[in-house]
Amino acid sequence: MKTLLLSLMAAASASAALVEKTVEYDQGGTTLEGFHVYDDAVSGKRPAVLVIHQWTGLTDYEKGRARQLAELGYNVFAADIYGKGVRPARPDAAKEAGKYKGDRDLFRARLKAGLEVLQKEEHTDTAKIAAIGYCFGGTGVLELARSGADIAGVVSFHGGLDAAEGKAAEKGGVKAKVLVLHGAEDPNVPTDQVLAFGKEMVEAGVDWQFVGYGGAVHAFTQKMAGNDNSKGAAYNEKADKRSWEAMKVFFAEIFE
Amino acid sequence: MKTLLLSLMAAASASAALVEKTVEYDQGGTTLEGFHVYDDAVSGKRPAVLVIHQWTGLTDYEKGRARQLAELGYNVFAADIYGKGVRPARPDAAKEAGKYKGDRDLFRARLKAGLEVLQKEEHTDTAKIAAIGYCFGGTGVLELARSGADIAGVVSFHGGLDAAEGKAAEKGGVKAKVLVLHGAEDPNVPTDQVLAFGKEMVEAGVDWQFVGYGGAVHAFTQKMAGNDNSKGAAYNEKADKRSWEAMKVFFAEIFE
Repeated sequence: MKTLLLSLMAAASASAALVEKTVEYDQGGTTLEGFHVYDDAVSGKRPAVLVIHQWTGLTDYEKGRARQLAELGYNVFAADIYGKGVRPARPDAAKEAGKYKGDRDLFRARLKAGLEVLQKEEHTDTAKIAAIGYCFGGTGVLELARSGADIAGVVSFHGGLDAAEGKAAEKGGVKAKVLVLHGAEDPNVPTDQVLAFGKEMVEAGVDWQFVGYGGAVHAFTQKMAGNDNSKGAAYNEKADKRSWEAMKVFFAEIFE
Repeated sequence: MKTLLLSLMAAASASAALVEKTVEYDQGGTTLEGFHVYDDAVSGKRPAVLVIHQWTGLTDYEKGRARQLAELGYNVFAADIYGKGVRPARPDAAKEAGKYKGDRDLFRARLKAGLEVLQKEEHTDTAKIAAIGYCFGGTGVLELARSGADIAGVVSFHGGLDAAEGKAAEKGGVKAKVLVLHGAEDPNVPTDQVLAFGKEMVEAGVDWQFVGYGGAVHAFTQKMAGNDNSKGAAYNEKADKRSWEAMKVFFAEIFE
């Protein structure tokens, strides 16, 4: 009987099946196409994570991260900021990202639309939602925090940290706890920007943490960035693993 | 039988007995008095941690941290930098600490003497040694790293980060991985010092990580520092817990 029970448990664990769905939704008349994934072997409502993509839009990279998070037991939605089918390569990616960085109201509206999809999804424990983002998406989750979104926390992986003119975090206005995971040698996010961000967080009374990874430049979590630090963007295995662990520890705290 | 076995296991776990010893040792003719602690319920050699005290010398605070580490399964030695019986209160503490900050060769010699006690102790797995330190001791463990000590890693809790003239880390000369846990609003370790430290680490090619805790000032791990941030030193429960978790994650990596 005991052996049977153990076998059944092992089978249940092994069968942990990810359920994946493409989700169309709308913001301001624009059709957006996100990616929803969760583990069917986990029952009921659970903590949830919103994933915001980098400048090339929602790609296999973000879907992979979403799957990793689903395997940890979270209900995950990778949002689409740009619009269905808008998945630009360089140099168009910079232009497309710039559109949202230059219009933070639009950026916030798109982020909020993605968050609402996750909030309404039946597997989400709405008291336990976090958002993570990469590069452009790192900027995005900070923007979500600055907007006063009622979520538990945000994690930026090598995101730009600059607030737009008149759009800095307001004193007492940030509900989310903030964790910034930064490549200490990232030329895209220079020291001045880091210091200005710290000042913004202090003045707004935010619960924030900043981690700088030695030896890491921009895009340190992304293998497709190559391994040449001199290009300013490169994969760094140590920083990738360490930042993922830091995120997990952060989630354990905020979802307690 | 199964119930008996479980009872025995529970008893073994509950009986996890810390063995504590005061250890006298010598450096350059000065008698030093350290504190050794380990869990007798753990068998054989194990990873080991050297603890370096703050400016008031080896006190109950460091002994408490040493016990916490022993409970995690480490073989722990809290070193004495100042000498037997030298446990100064303010303002003498600043003067005593200044003696070693102003003479890094002496500081390094005392650090090395403490490390050697731990290296020779029978429970130590000599391939798995780390050092942690608080305030003055944070500076100490960085000094140990700069000296090229052959250990796996060092963790500074709200330590001063400045290298002495001519004593900066040398390129390729630092073997230990470095984790700095810093109060983002610590007036004793200002931004200029943080930036100079980062530059030093980059130039020396050190494997380093830096964490800044929002809302935290100097001495954020120490309840006896009180709760008034405006004094520049104060306890911060969140930063205390987060930094301890960060240390544990770091140990899990370096002792792998």
